Amino acid sequence: MLGIAFGRFDDSFSLGSLKAYLAEFISTLLFVFAGVGSAIAYNKLTSDAALDPSGLVAVAVCHGFALFVAVSVGANISGGHVNPAVTFGLALGGQITILTGIFYWVAQLVGSIVACYLLKVVTGGLAVPTHGLAAGVGAAEGVVMEIIITFALVYTVYATAADPKKGSLGIIAPIAIGFIVGANILAAGPFSGGSNEPGPLLRAGSGKWGLPQ
Amino acid sequence: MLGIAFGRFDDSFSLGSLKAYLAEFISTLLFVFAGVGSAIAYNKLTSDAALDPSGLVAVAVCHGFALFVAVSVGANISGGHVNPAVTFGLALGGQITILTGIFYWVAQLVGSIVACYLLKVVTGGLAVPTHGLAAGVGAAEGVVMEIIITFALVYTVYATAADPKKGSLGIIAPIAIGFIVGANILAAGPFSGGSNEPGPLLRAGSGKWGLPQ
Amino acid sequence: MLGIAFGRFDDSFSLGSLKAYLAEFISTLLFVFAGVGSAIAYNKLTSDAALDPSGLVAVAVCHGFALFVAVSVGANISGGHVNPAVTFGLALGGQITILTGIFYWVAQLVGSIVACYLLKVVTGGLAVPTHGLAAGVGAAEGVVMEIIITFALVYTVYATAADPKKGSLGIIAPIAIGFIVGANILAAGPFSGGSNEPGPLLRAGSGKWGLPQ
Amino acid sequence: MLGIAFGRFDDSFSLGSLKAYLAEFISTLLFVFAGVGSAIAYNKLTSDAALDPSGLVAVAVCHGFALFVAVSVGANISGGHVNPAVTFGLALGGQITILTGIFYWVAQLVGSIVACYLLKVVTGGLAVPTHGLAAGVGAAEGVVMEIIITFALVYTVYATAADPKKGSLGIIAPIAIGFIVGANILAAGPFSGGSNEPGPLLRAGSGKWGLPQ
Repeated sequence: MLGIAFGRFDDSFSLGSLKAYLAEFISTLLFVFAGVGSAIAYNKLTSDAALDPSGLVAVAVCHGFALFVAVSVGANISGGHVNPAVTFGLALGGQITILTGIFYWVAQLVGSIVACYLLKVVTGGLAVPTHGLAAGVGAAEGVVMEIIITFALVYTVYATAADPKKGSLGIIAPIAIGFIVGANILAAGPFSGGSNEPGPLLRAGSGKWGLPQ
Repeated sequence: MLGIAFGRFDDSFSLGSLKAYLAEFISTLLFVFAGVGSAIAYNKLTSDAALDPSGLVAVAVCHGFALFVAVSVGANISGGHVNPAVTFGLALGGQITILTGIFYWVAQLVGSIVACYLLKVVTGGLAVPTHGLAAGVGAAEGVVMEIIITFALVYTVYATAADPKKGSLGIIAPIAIGFIVGANILAAGPFSGGSNEPGPLLRAGSGKWGLPQ
Repeated sequence: MLGIAFGRFDDSFSLGSLKAYLAEFISTLLFVFAGVGSAIAYNKLTSDAALDPSGLVAVAVCHGFALFVAVSVGANISGGHVNPAVTFGLALGGQITILTGIFYWVAQLVGSIVACYLLKVVTGGLAVPTHGLAAGVGAAEGVVMEIIITFALVYTVYATAADPKKGSLGIIAPIAIGFIVGANILAAGPFSGGSNEPGPLLRAGSGKWGLPQ
Repeated sequence: MLGIAFGRFDDSFSLGSLKAYLAEFISTLLFVFAGVGSAIAYNKLTSDAALDPSGLVAVAVCHGFALFVAVSVGANISGGHVNPAVTFGLALGGQITILTGIFYWVAQLVGSIVACYLLKVVTGGLAVPTHGLAAGVGAAEGVVMEIIITFALVYTVYATAADPKKGSLGIIAPIAIGFIVGANILAAGPFSGGSNEPGPLLRAGSGKWGLPQ
């Protein structure tokens, strides 16, 4: 399982690696733009009402569809991680070197910051929602929730996309990766926001999956 | 059709079998966590209101997406049963031995109990909903409803995944298996809960697909 | 295009043909059970309120998912027509003989009648909704609407499943066939019911896709 | 990247090209009929109420499903562009000549005009909704929004369908192309309409993706 490798600088700056960073940047930008955009859209349509089930469906379906596509369009170039937690999980398994993984993180974070900035511009300055714990949910509960749904995401990536023996399952891997996030937002959204990120720092940086609360 | 085999202990305790039990445990845990979680999420968002159509869509889509992924991530290891009814149906057809099937059941039941326990923790102690018959639906009606939708699920598994002549249909089999459950929850949810389980015992054990009623 | 063949009786009563009729019967039964069931479920949840957008989503998604699965599970046995209009369209193109097509129709009609009867039983005697034109929609408008969406369905079947040069597109054909019906119910449901059937007679016989109106 | 070619008239009038124009006409007609039809359906069901989240889900899911199918049914004949922006993007990359691309545009525009005309007929004369900027969204914001989501669409087409090294990703390409539009309507719909068209002229011509506002 564990085969962590630090990696070499010349490998991390090869043309293929630079293309991969660009692909991660674009995939994450498009994913965060659609996903966070759907949360802002809910606020716009309801004049910032509390989230209701139809809004949860809108936000979850948008994330599921958009992540599926973001993984697809990156798959042949960067592997389509789109998410620091996936890159971290794949680095732990030796599927990507630490060094290249750090550049993936930078590309993902910059992509998501640019997406949030663009959303602010195109919505005429509306607030970009951030995650928060719902009333009645403590910090420990939120952390456990995020651990479970992040595990679900990384496990899905390993079983359907990274596994060398995946066979024809790999064809529908991007759909599975997107839809597990859609499903988990339907469960976790009203509690921890369903951000699928391993740490508050990354989450704050990426501004991802902000459900209106 | 019928080719029931009891099986041998050494086969049921091979490394491959133990991996399969672990895969069933994880797949069922993730599926029940998302599916039942979406029902709790509805209760949270609406302060325990009666189910409405948008909530039914949320719960059904979550189950459809999550089962598709749970079947996918288990497919290459355990076959991705995720459900005692599927294991039972495949044992009847000789696709799995009785003995190994019993261990699959244990793995599925433990996975779903752990999922429900985790849901109780992460939601700050909210109730895990259980199935019940809706007003105006008798026990016999509920049993017939569950028989039909469980048949639909097992028939789909046979036709798309277990059939040795399935050909390229096998590529989208996990999606079909997940979505037939999503469709049947949209039909059966307001009547019998749409649990897709062959018996109240299993259903109670697995705590599955609890629609708020 | 036109290659209509009447067919021979011995061919229509071969073991393969009998299996195909059974497959059409089961596929149509499961599809109509879920689809019409979702319309009854809406009536149940809302105490027979007028259809609203969230109910339309529930009914359309259920039909899309269920038809995709019904086509999948029949694909390798009967071709997965599930619908008299598809059988009619394929007979016009010589993909199935007239004689075998008539038996397909019988299997589909019986499957859908059994489905409606089962729905009546399991819902404790609730009404099975039938199609009707909405207020402000005349008979001619309804016919044109049904012609367009039925054409969309049959065209999709030809382009993705029946075309001998379809290539890898055939892998996702059942999903496309299911989802075009889901999409068209979202458009046509509030007007003509979106029944995708070529004639009121068949429609009445099959009791299909009954949107509450 | 850039390999623009003007093309030759005899090539643009070959039998294959004429078939491709017809395929684009039919695909665009069916897509616009379903997509715009879902917006009219929302107006019908709600008596022209303001868009709410469940209506946004209905319209977005309909567009996602219908575009996926429209791309699928055209894929083997015309490549399944269905959208002037896609044809424009592929012409820039030399995937289609300028001359043939212009005929694609004509086919797409005529298909969408016929679809809107048919919608007017079958709905008993209801208004076909057109795009407009929401309150608080200026022209510049709307243009940037449309640039981003149109880029997402064309990028998805390139990465999953046009890329000669796409491999098995091409199998699910039509689903990805449809679902990125579904996702982006969930984000952009309440702001710019989410039309995915590069210019107001084309948009007006095609009358596409009209969200009720």
